[in-house]
Amino acid sequence: MIIVLKPRTTEENVKRVEDMVRAKGLSVHTVYGEDLTIIGCIGDTMRVDSRVFEVDKSVEKVMHVQESYKLANRAFHPEDTIVDVSGVKVGGEHLALIAGPCSVESEEQVIEIAKAAKASGANMLRGGAFKPRTSPYAFQGMGLEGLEILVRAKEETGLPIVTELMSAEYLDVFDEKVDLIQIGARNMQNFDLLKQLGNTKRPILLKRGLNATYEEWIMSAEYIMASGNPNVILCERGVRTFESYTRNTLDLQAIPVIKKKSHLPIIVDPSHAGGKWWLVEPMAKASIAAGADGLMIEVHNNPEAALCDGGQSLKPEKYDKLLTEITQIAKVVGKTV
Amino acid sequence: MIIVLKPRTTEENVKRVEDMVRAKGLSVHTVYGEDLTIIGCIGDTMRVDSRVFEVDKSVEKVMHVQESYKLANRAFHPEDTIVDVSGVKVGGEHLALIAGPCSVESEEQVIEIAKAAKASGANMLRGGAFKPRTSPYAFQGMGLEGLEILVRAKEETGLPIVTELMSAEYLDVFDEKVDLIQIGARNMQNFDLLKQLGNTKRPILLKRGLNATYEEWIMSAEYIMASGNPNVILCERGVRTFESYTRNTLDLQAIPVIKKKSHLPIIVDPSHAGGKWWLVEPMAKASIAAGADGLMIEVHNNPEAALCDGGQSLKPEKYDKLLTEITQIAKVVGKTV
Amino acid sequence: MIIVLKPRTTEENVKRVEDMVRAKGLSVHTVYGEDLTIIGCIGDTMRVDSRVFEVDKSVEKVMHVQESYKLANRAFHPEDTIVDVSGVKVGGEHLALIAGPCSVESEEQVIEIAKAAKASGANMLRGGAFKPRTSPYAFQGMGLEGLEILVRAKEETGLPIVTELMSAEYLDVFDEKVDLIQIGARNMQNFDLLKQLGNTKRPILLKRGLNATYEEWIMSAEYIMASGNPNVILCERGVRTFESYTRNTLDLQAIPVIKKKSHLPIIVDPSHAGGKWWLVEPMAKASIAAGADGLMIEVHNNPEAALCDGGQSLKPEKYDKLLTEITQIAKVVGKTV
Amino acid sequence: MIIVLKPRTTEENVKRVEDMVRAKGLSVHTVYGEDLTIIGCIGDTMRVDSRVFEVDKSVEKVMHVQESYKLANRAFHPEDTIVDVSGVKVGGEHLALIAGPCSVESEEQVIEIAKAAKASGANMLRGGAFKPRTSPYAFQGMGLEGLEILVRAKEETGLPIVTELMSAEYLDVFDEKVDLIQIGARNMQNFDLLKQLGNTKRPILLKRGLNATYEEWIMSAEYIMASGNPNVILCERGVRTFESYTRNTLDLQAIPVIKKKSHLPIIVDPSHAGGKWWLVEPMAKASIAAGADGLMIEVHNNPEAALCDGGQSLKPEKYDKLLTEITQIAKVVGKTV
Repeated sequence: MIIVLKPRTTEENVKRVEDMVRAKGLSVHTVYGEDLTIIGCIGDTMRVDSRVFEVDKSVEKVMHVQESYKLANRAFHPEDTIVDVSGVKVGGEHLALIAGPCSVESEEQVIEIAKAAKASGANMLRGGAFKPRTSPYAFQGMGLEGLEILVRAKEETGLPIVTELMSAEYLDVFDEKVDLIQIGARNMQNFDLLKQLGNTKRPILLKRGLNATYEEWIMSAEYIMASGNPNVILCERGVRTFESYTRNTLDLQAIPVIKKKSHLPIIVDPSHAGGKWWLVEPMAKASIAAGADGLMIEVHNNPEAALCDGGQSLKPEKYDKLLTEITQIAKVVGKTV
Repeated sequence: MIIVLKPRTTEENVKRVEDMVRAKGLSVHTVYGEDLTIIGCIGDTMRVDSRVFEVDKSVEKVMHVQESYKLANRAFHPEDTIVDVSGVKVGGEHLALIAGPCSVESEEQVIEIAKAAKASGANMLRGGAFKPRTSPYAFQGMGLEGLEILVRAKEETGLPIVTELMSAEYLDVFDEKVDLIQIGARNMQNFDLLKQLGNTKRPILLKRGLNATYEEWIMSAEYIMASGNPNVILCERGVRTFESYTRNTLDLQAIPVIKKKSHLPIIVDPSHAGGKWWLVEPMAKASIAAGADGLMIEVHNNPEAALCDGGQSLKPEKYDKLLTEITQIAKVVGKTV
Repeated sequence: MIIVLKPRTTEENVKRVEDMVRAKGLSVHTVYGEDLTIIGCIGDTMRVDSRVFEVDKSVEKVMHVQESYKLANRAFHPEDTIVDVSGVKVGGEHLALIAGPCSVESEEQVIEIAKAAKASGANMLRGGAFKPRTSPYAFQGMGLEGLEILVRAKEETGLPIVTELMSAEYLDVFDEKVDLIQIGARNMQNFDLLKQLGNTKRPILLKRGLNATYEEWIMSAEYIMASGNPNVILCERGVRTFESYTRNTLDLQAIPVIKKKSHLPIIVDPSHAGGKWWLVEPMAKASIAAGADGLMIEVHNNPEAALCDGGQSLKPEKYDKLLTEITQIAKVVGKTV
Repeated sequence: MIIVLKPRTTEENVKRVEDMVRAKGLSVHTVYGEDLTIIGCIGDTMRVDSRVFEVDKSVEKVMHVQESYKLANRAFHPEDTIVDVSGVKVGGEHLALIAGPCSVESEEQVIEIAKAAKASGANMLRGGAFKPRTSPYAFQGMGLEGLEILVRAKEETGLPIVTELMSAEYLDVFDEKVDLIQIGARNMQNFDLLKQLGNTKRPILLKRGLNATYEEWIMSAEYIMASGNPNVILCERGVRTFESYTRNTLDLQAIPVIKKKSHLPIIVDPSHAGGKWWLVEPMAKASIAAGADGLMIEVHNNPEAALCDGGQSLKPEKYDKLLTEITQIAKVVGKTV
């Protein structure tokens, strides 16, 4: 942490700020420049709220030079983490290929889509049982009944299942039945929920919040890891910008950035990012070319009749064709399908 | 809802889309323009997921013409709602003047600040007991112990208390002890929590999410109202933009916009918006001049030693001077203090 | 400037980076922390492109600790600058009250509006002669003919005139006839145009770009000042965010921030920010309460028939009422009207 | 264009708004819904400023249903446009592979880089002669001398040259010597400059503004086309968001979106987008996988010593390796190198 002092700060005031820093358990190293004086703060700065120094009349600003996360930090864990989702490896050279409907609507629907997706090469099944909806009047998902349908689809196809947890209330049942527990974008900073995820060893799929910085996203992973669950997969799903033609702006730079800062795997959800089915194919290919560890794609056998987000779902035939091209691009960048 | 068809859509395809609309329980009214054909959809469009039509090969785009909220909508409730917080009225010409420390740190601290704030004219006391922090390693608040301190400060000063609820787990105790229950920006779309708030009649202070549109924010109020609690106060606290010199960009246009769209009161939190104490005073005055129904301001007797967000807190003397000016501006815009 | 090195950088590599810094004419001061080593760079860092160091394999990141502007910097010029616009003072306690139509449409229109605005208390007349329009097919303004109309309105009313310059081609005629030359948001980083503004001594009204940071905005003022024209007034007119209900998000924190960083006056244009006439009144009052040095407001005698931006224009009666309230708020914050 | 009226608008007021619409030369078709009345406006709505209707007391809002561009619109020109840059085709299956230094620094430098890039497969040479810099004190480019160096490099290697035009003042010399004239992000809405580009037939490379919507970007291309120059190539180079770790957020969804809305080619500049050399390789591969018509990449033989933007430049060896992988991905998506 570096404290930049105001121009022409007196010797006495420099000393006072240095003392404030020492009082927080840090040691100081002060550099006198031409116009500016800066105080380098040495020690465990992670536990100090730096803004407290900004109150001081002699302080211009406080700058962080170090990340605030340890467990998720590649600096302390240089090798790629490979997460095991009930036998399916994610990370390193292994791709997660997750497909399925936005919402679980019926057993027939889910099993039909699951079989088609598996035949195309998918290795996990997604489906929403509890749905976060902007409107209280919109379809909120089938809940536990939807979860049971996913379990039956798993029995039928052998595909591990991925579904979203919205409340700690259901953590026990998710722990028992769900292979990969999804935390949605809107709950990325529901810190209370994140802390509870240490009570399961099931892998967590942590979606990026709509306006979360890379640092905040990794900090949310750190919450889960610090609570005792090291099995976290990150999922880029677009961020909110001024552009409203697409639902969100997919940030594929997130892939190399996360890989540089963290050892955790990162996959991409191109369906939610753009909100339009014809954006899914080019963005899925781009994601793999950029080094993503997998894709989560909405596939629906009858998008026109979907209860939710039909407009962003691929039909099984299109998904099948997409995976063929994905396989070729994966080879170029050193991944296996 | 309006469906815009692709240029040169055939008569047959127009019919097919019209049938899809009718199948959702809506009636249609089609307009043939020079280059474009549009289908007006009439009926209860609020319950229909419009994106499902975007899947159709003949559909160019779907546009909403109507808000998705009813209970919070001024169109159906033209008069200002006035919320009663344990005797303190908020809305109409009544200002909420909420002050207190970011975090509860000790009984002495809270009571000293509460007395000073009340003497300056504050009519409610805020203080964080449960703190949402980006880092799992940062101070997370005193929890229930902090809540007890607030209760004692209320006994001492008579000021109703405002504090943040982060999990439904504590709803019962909040219902018993807290006068105005705050839902923080990061939980604005924690839909599970919002639904549970119908189980209390205590007024709810709903902060705007960092990237929430006006529509989404009001929809979150609608969640609370639809679950059975009509006592909602909105709180603007800045949105996230490209500008990083300030913590967030305070959006004061939110005040007249919310007042146009909704009948609910809206207050402003200038302390969290800017993240710098010297921004609080001008933004507090601007908020009142723009018609806000109140202010929530961090006041701390020793900001340099605060455990959290000291940098954005006012000292009691500055708060006192601010309220004097606020009183004068309030008169100009027809509010009473 | 501070260079943060990667963890575990060897002594040899630290030396190499220090040598790179010295080769740029700076001196170094290196601080060894627990996990990190940082190199403080001392000297005229303003002329060094810091990103060049980021190429080095041992460098983690480079951070700036100092502003890049001098002429516009309050640190080197603590008193408020007061700009004289043909006799009307702007800055300090003096408010610029600029009113007029978005576009000049006819002599009768402009003179009628100018007289009404003056009677209400306006002290400058605005009107667009050259209009920046998103579409090549939209009305582009009356050009030089419009400028002549403004000149006649000035003769009639005595109000100094404000109008936008879009190209250096017309700088000579603007220098002769225009009292305050406006540079629009879209040209805020048209560096070629900015440099030419040193060829006039007429005051410049520099609007903030839709996505310009405070630093970039002040740097554009610095361009004008460095080219020889010190008479710059800044104008906040909203920034682009994810919220699309309003045209732009008005950033009133800009007022205290600019006043802290720079000595230049800052005014606000609430008409363009929101794009809706009913937002103008509350935002104008908020701007003055926040300490703005003036307002630029669109006034039109017949908004429904305006050739451009009628939807954001006030009628003269509303403007008159607004100035009455503005006058009262101005007094509270120490400004004179 | 659709005008949504306020709830409970009287018959008389509906008529009045209809008359306003007719007065603009449009015909009307009114739809009466349950809660709302909407007026469909039929005719050449492109020339009507829709905001004028928002002034009316009975109007809730005005919505556009049609794009405002014609020449650039794929609806009126379904086939891909292929732009010929002095013999190098761009668009359709043809990739532009543009490489070179950020700034022209010396003849030796440019020719060495140009030869290496050509050997790797580049088919155009870029280099900045006139540089848009945020600071007036930063290196502003070699100007016309730099342009001469590029011309000599072209003579030496046969590569067409690409360089940025910042002012119409130099249009004649660019018309004579430059093969592809770049308009930078900051000038994307310098409408005066755009209009002048009709005076050359040289292809124009139009970079997206940092906060330009797709619609605005295409409208700027429309300006150039409407002024008489149909040879426009679009270039995505990142947009500004809340994320500041990367210089900008690269929006690869722009590729399929632009291809859907327009027939113009679109290339990507991954160097400026991320601002970090290690982001260039994954984003270049992702761009091609997403269907881009080319890449513009900064290559420098000695990035540490570059006068500008060295931190985002690739060394020639890395560029060579990258083009090998690009060639493989291009095949998968049906492009030829």
